[in-house]
Amino acid sequence: MRVDLNADLGEGYGPWRMGDDAALLDLLTSANVACGGHAGDADTMVETLELARARGVVVGAHPGYADPAGFGRRVIPMTARGIERMVATQIGTLMGAAALAGVRVSYVKAHGALANLAADEVDVAQAVARAVAAVSRDLGLLAISGTALEPAGRGCGLRVFSEVFADRAYLPNGRLVPRSQPGAVIEDADAAVARLIGFVQTGRMPVLDGLPIALAADSICVHGDSPHAVAMARAVRQGLIGAGVTLAPFIG
Amino acid sequence: MRVDLNADLGEGYGPWRMGDDAALLDLLTSANVACGGHAGDADTMVETLELARARGVVVGAHPGYADPAGFGRRVIPMTARGIERMVATQIGTLMGAAALAGVRVSYVKAHGALANLAADEVDVAQAVARAVAAVSRDLGLLAISGTALEPAGRGCGLRVFSEVFADRAYLPNGRLVPRSQPGAVIEDADAAVARLIGFVQTGRMPVLDGLPIALAADSICVHGDSPHAVAMARAVRQGLIGAGVTLAPFIG
Amino acid sequence: MRVDLNADLGEGYGPWRMGDDAALLDLLTSANVACGGHAGDADTMVETLELARARGVVVGAHPGYADPAGFGRRVIPMTARGIERMVATQIGTLMGAAALAGVRVSYVKAHGALANLAADEVDVAQAVARAVAAVSRDLGLLAISGTALEPAGRGCGLRVFSEVFADRAYLPNGRLVPRSQPGAVIEDADAAVARLIGFVQTGRMPVLDGLPIALAADSICVHGDSPHAVAMARAVRQGLIGAGVTLAPFIG
Amino acid sequence: MRVDLNADLGEGYGPWRMGDDAALLDLLTSANVACGGHAGDADTMVETLELARARGVVVGAHPGYADPAGFGRRVIPMTARGIERMVATQIGTLMGAAALAGVRVSYVKAHGALANLAADEVDVAQAVARAVAAVSRDLGLLAISGTALEPAGRGCGLRVFSEVFADRAYLPNGRLVPRSQPGAVIEDADAAVARLIGFVQTGRMPVLDGLPIALAADSICVHGDSPHAVAMARAVRQGLIGAGVTLAPFIG
Repeated sequence: MRVDLNADLGEGYGPWRMGDDAALLDLLTSANVACGGHAGDADTMVETLELARARGVVVGAHPGYADPAGFGRRVIPMTARGIERMVATQIGTLMGAAALAGVRVSYVKAHGALANLAADEVDVAQAVARAVAAVSRDLGLLAISGTALEPAGRGCGLRVFSEVFADRAYLPNGRLVPRSQPGAVIEDADAAVARLIGFVQTGRMPVLDGLPIALAADSICVHGDSPHAVAMARAVRQGLIGAGVTLAPFIG
Repeated sequence: MRVDLNADLGEGYGPWRMGDDAALLDLLTSANVACGGHAGDADTMVETLELARARGVVVGAHPGYADPAGFGRRVIPMTARGIERMVATQIGTLMGAAALAGVRVSYVKAHGALANLAADEVDVAQAVARAVAAVSRDLGLLAISGTALEPAGRGCGLRVFSEVFADRAYLPNGRLVPRSQPGAVIEDADAAVARLIGFVQTGRMPVLDGLPIALAADSICVHGDSPHAVAMARAVRQGLIGAGVTLAPFIG
Repeated sequence: MRVDLNADLGEGYGPWRMGDDAALLDLLTSANVACGGHAGDADTMVETLELARARGVVVGAHPGYADPAGFGRRVIPMTARGIERMVATQIGTLMGAAALAGVRVSYVKAHGALANLAADEVDVAQAVARAVAAVSRDLGLLAISGTALEPAGRGCGLRVFSEVFADRAYLPNGRLVPRSQPGAVIEDADAAVARLIGFVQTGRMPVLDGLPIALAADSICVHGDSPHAVAMARAVRQGLIGAGVTLAPFIG
Repeated sequence: MRVDLNADLGEGYGPWRMGDDAALLDLLTSANVACGGHAGDADTMVETLELARARGVVVGAHPGYADPAGFGRRVIPMTARGIERMVATQIGTLMGAAALAGVRVSYVKAHGALANLAADEVDVAQAVARAVAAVSRDLGLLAISGTALEPAGRGCGLRVFSEVFADRAYLPNGRLVPRSQPGAVIEDADAAVARLIGFVQTGRMPVLDGLPIALAADSICVHGDSPHAVAMARAVRQGLIGAGVTLAPFIG
């Protein structure tokens, strides 16, 4: 039993910080680093990458809508072509920072509203996948498990990996319970950990109003920007290790 | 006799355009493409690179202060470390766009106030050179002839190339006459062309109040954003070719 | 017979210009000046307002989504509350500029995607109207004729004025033919002028596939950012004056 | 004995927060609210103003260089005219927000690098003062005590008020000890409070290497963005009240 633990990092901007990156990096095996679109600037990118390197945490690019005011959580109307260009340039931006920090960018994971749209809409999924493949076919693509981005990535010749969320409840169709509904977020760390251990052991995820469903997962995503992010990540890490699960990056 | 002809391109932003890139690209051998710092966005970058590719024009990254309101012409107070990071990420950004456009980024030329500061201040010059070398030692560095950026680039193991300006008057010390002084800009295309032909033939540049000075030049820079940019570039190109000068990129 | 002629101005940003504001201002009676949201900065605002003042052109605030990359033409997901705040702060911004330029901001007209949304969605219309009324009940509200913004403005105690478009075709329901359809834009200035003269004389606007419809109009909007903007504005102005129509601002 | 207590608030941007505004507002008598230049957006402005209104804290506009990446702490090269326009539009922006929040903007205090430059350079000081006076002569101007901004403000017919800093050491010439020097910041709250009580009682401020100097002060500035900001503000407030000093706004 083996799984990766990822979170979004480097999401400051100028004088502003978001979350405790250094503390989280002690707990993760993969770090999705903001690329200057929804968050991040040259300094936060290089500094986050240096912290990741010092801890041996694998690094991924985390492109999002170029909308810092909305933190990449709003769908900005764009053509698929525009999305493709936005993603490719953001990956390049982080690669420039990675060259200075002396680390490799190993994979790409879309952020926020872009990730959600790429999960559902095939043309957006293909735009994201094309952008990744254009920059480098050596990049892995980390997708929300069971979504349109997975086949889109494979169609572009990319290695595709799947993630589930540590603290989000699932629907019988494998999608997340919308945040607007009660029970969408699992606040209790013990409950989240118990659920994840069961999932890693059985490959079946509990859902709201139904039997557990089969869901692929190379990685578990913990949130980096909530007040309790570090505590949740620590609980998940320790719980999984205690259950005999090996935490290791999904890509080198 | 052989020289390169370069100009700054891709300097639009969102709905705004700057200069006639398509017309200029028919005249140049190298194009310095804005990287999203002082100008440029994902669309302008990819589109400009596609235009350059279609014409076989060699492409360079053109990083500048991340200050679109000032178009990169204002010195933004930054540490040398901050400049290094800014330049590395901007080169990466353009490389991401270039991956989509199917072209190679062959060299780097700093823009505006950053180029001027890197010409004079050794720590800034070294920061720019380190950033370029960190991204790739295969990148050429195009520097203003006779400035601190040249030794800084060589010190980082980069191939360094020099440029002179088609329409700017020079001082006996090899620096440009400041724009605030009369005669700083050579408005008359015929005068500019005659002067450049003489320079390419002799390696000596006329100066204000003095004898012509020796100045190295692998490339001549024509401006892209003035109203008469295309006419000036055409006059320079035709004048040089008519004088038997071969126009060719300084790097592949 | 009397009508106002308005256009969007001051839509540059930093080094970039959009349209020929000075030439247009010679032809208009009212100028909608960008407020730093979709376009405009402190310099363009003050300079445009000074030009308007010198010509006696009445000035309105022209708030739009804070999305310069999209020029305010994309719907940015926001709450009605967020829109209300965005509009109020943008009006304030222009009023600060107007204080320096020595002119009064007399009315407000929403821009682009915000204007279109406020035309259709009552909560957006009311948010815009509340913002205007909060800043000052002396401000007029210029709305697209026949849309939800008109009753919303009156509901907030504002004087509401209506505009039609000089170069856009109408549907039988009084809405514009979408730009994606053929015939949406009336390119021919003579045709546009003849149509406007008839409209001002009769109060009835020709529509695609139907009989002319009654449409209120205190003002005619000519576009400021198309290549032929000045020529179209001049044709409309001269045509209307030639037909005995008085061009005068709808508000003081 | 009576003095005002002010701090910089509303310095978040989009998803990012800076300091604990609500806690600070319980302790202050005046709040300098960021205007969207160095920090702040429509939501943070309105929300901060609503918090201030609920507590009866007087509100001032806090304009700064339009450089969020540098948090307004970098001097951005601008003409005096450009500064004047920047300040006027930012004041207007906050007034638009204040109209929604139902509060009055009573004064203006420049932020960061702009405040420092306006303290020393007469043309910058006059540009700031002209901008304030153009927007409204009813606005007070809060200046660093003993600086060029005071006469500039009076020259424009403004009521000028002076501030000293709660946690910064002074030089014999009345200027702050630069942050780069040891002892520049008074970290110990007790020491800071004792020093302020003495200052309010005597009108004389202790200085590094010299006898206390006379310094005018209508207000004491506590910092809002340091980790210990709230604790320091609380100590200063309680210390001053305990010493019989009345805390009250300097303007209505």
